[in-house]
Amino acid sequence: MGKNIAVVLSGCGVYDGAEIQEAVLSMYSIKRYGASYQVFAPNINQHHVINHLTGEEMNETRNVMVESARIARGNVLPIEDYEVQNFDALLFPGGFGAAKNLSSYAFKGANMEVLPSVKKVIQDTHAAGKPIGVLCIAPVLIAKIIVGAELTIGVDTNTSKHVEEMGAVHKNTSHAEVIYDSKNKIISSPCYMLDATIDQIGAGADKVVAELVALS
Amino acid sequence: MGKNIAVVLSGCGVYDGAEIQEAVLSMYSIKRYGASYQVFAPNINQHHVINHLTGEEMNETRNVMVESARIARGNVLPIEDYEVQNFDALLFPGGFGAAKNLSSYAFKGANMEVLPSVKKVIQDTHAAGKPIGVLCIAPVLIAKIIVGAELTIGVDTNTSKHVEEMGAVHKNTSHAEVIYDSKNKIISSPCYMLDATIDQIGAGADKVVAELVALS
Repeated sequence: MGKNIAVVLSGCGVYDGAEIQEAVLSMYSIKRYGASYQVFAPNINQHHVINHLTGEEMNETRNVMVESARIARGNVLPIEDYEVQNFDALLFPGGFGAAKNLSSYAFKGANMEVLPSVKKVIQDTHAAGKPIGVLCIAPVLIAKIIVGAELTIGVDTNTSKHVEEMGAVHKNTSHAEVIYDSKNKIISSPCYMLDATIDQIGAGADKVVAELVALS
Repeated sequence: MGKNIAVVLSGCGVYDGAEIQEAVLSMYSIKRYGASYQVFAPNINQHHVINHLTGEEMNETRNVMVESARIARGNVLPIEDYEVQNFDALLFPGGFGAAKNLSSYAFKGANMEVLPSVKKVIQDTHAAGKPIGVLCIAPVLIAKIIVGAELTIGVDTNTSKHVEEMGAVHKNTSHAEVIYDSKNKIISSPCYMLDATIDQIGAGADKVVAELVALS
């Protein structure tokens, strides 16, 4: 039986949701390693909507789960439906959605809160001894919830300082490098926290997924 | 010098725009073959907005170029800026956006019209003897514009009939198979015109991109 991995999305687009390339290339690697995936997302409104051409806020309201369904071609379940016994691993692609919709990191830094439904998914998975992959900015979710976790957000000094203030151990990384916290089974890679190209994103996501499949 | 490929998007999401997985995996293959890409899109409103979770139309207006920028992380040029001498090949991922925004195929079948700016890009590229890749439903654009082109939309009898009515020669294909029209330099693959998985989409997009890079 192939492994089954839960992928949590936070919308559809780097500036207000899930980073699309990180999400798609993660799903692609999961299937190429013979595993399957189920996408989950919270059924809440996005913090805001950003025009990705201009960077300006738009006077619109969009729902995280509805927009995530664009990436997943409709097949998204509400995050409350996640049951840890049905999955072998958990994966969070990045994008500002992780810092604006799944948590308040973008606004509160180290004083951030994690959405309760997201917190429960992480805690349940960690308590069951199952691995969790986090790309790009998503490691801040782990830093807040799993005390002492070792992880990477690349080389950004401001973010790495926040991560350490929350009690995590930060390791600098370059393109497609992975930090594996074997005690907590947390696998992280910086992806678009660095000034990267899509092939580097694919390489980073692929290494994280390979570890998730091997460990689970 | 690496090859430079123009990628034309039609929004962001399979039911009203560009098929996200086809778009991302095409861009990923382009970079992995050592080529670069520039994304283009028409600066027009989408035909409509579909809730990708329910399939229902939403009472919203979205712009094709603005939504395409979600996939491209902001770097999208208006399609009128395409100059054939700056590119080695042209690529259209699929999604209903090709049939609703770039053309009227979804509503008029074989009597469809192609958006004039899209028609010009295809005609200029074809006249310059440069290759054009088309995924999923996007081959209908070629069928309408390049008389007698040989191409595939998979095995859907309704669509293949339309394509032949417009003057193209249709070839049935299965997952990740490619039809190469050497006279017209048209490379097509069915992608999500079949009931496919994301790894099959990656394999099809990769073969089309490999041909585009080799030919150009």
